[in-house]
Amino acid sequence: MYKKKIPVNLDCGLHLFMEVIQGKWKIALIWCIHSGIKRPGELQRKISKASRRLLDNQLSELVNHGILTKITYEERPLKVEYELTSLGKSLIPAIEYTAQWGEDHREELEKLIQS
Amino acid sequence: MYKKKIPVNLDCGLHLFMEVIQGKWKIALIWCIHSGIKRPGELQRKISKASRRLLDNQLSELVNHGILTKITYEERPLKVEYELTSLGKSLIPAIEYTAQWGEDHREELEKLIQS
Repeated sequence: MYKKKIPVNLDCGLHLFMEVIQGKWKIALIWCIHSGIKRPGELQRKISKASRRLLDNQLSELVNHGILTKITYEERPLKVEYELTSLGKSLIPAIEYTAQWGEDHREELEKLIQS
Repeated sequence: MYKKKIPVNLDCGLHLFMEVIQGKWKIALIWCIHSGIKRPGELQRKISKASRRLLDNQLSELVNHGILTKITYEERPLKVEYELTSLGKSLIPAIEYTAQWGEDHREELEKLIQS
């Protein structure tokens, strides 16, 4: 796996949040799994802009960061599902809170960021 | 100024939050200014790990994103101060909320992220 060269800055709670949440499609993945879309194929169909490889990569990181659990059912064909851990579930209100801030200020932010 | 090649993803409130908050020392700068440290020299002394050039860069981006106002006092020597805009002030509870999540889970997150 890719190793960061710069040591992670862990001296601030917000940095921990950012560390876990940063990475393309991670929030989308967490949100989909929270909404009950749990299988890799379903997630790929929902987030069709991302490649399967990238999604698998992000899913593994979220597993390593203790946000998701990967469940493999020993059947043929093999069935894989992802679930939020209790740590992952605790992220939901924080995501909702910040998303609400973005929504509340969407109009002014879109103007400022695009310009 | 540096222009991103990939268009900004604005279709989610959380992405707007991340877009504004991402960037080294931005949160520290917002937090310092919120605590009353307003002048570039004072900010540099407080965030001494960052170069003055980098801080000036991040401050400009925060001004462009509508988070800070730069106030120049026409005196000799020139005096510059930064203030949070009302949009910037509205970020404070969101920062507090996510920082609290990080603090609450610091022990488990530090283990998971370092490993």
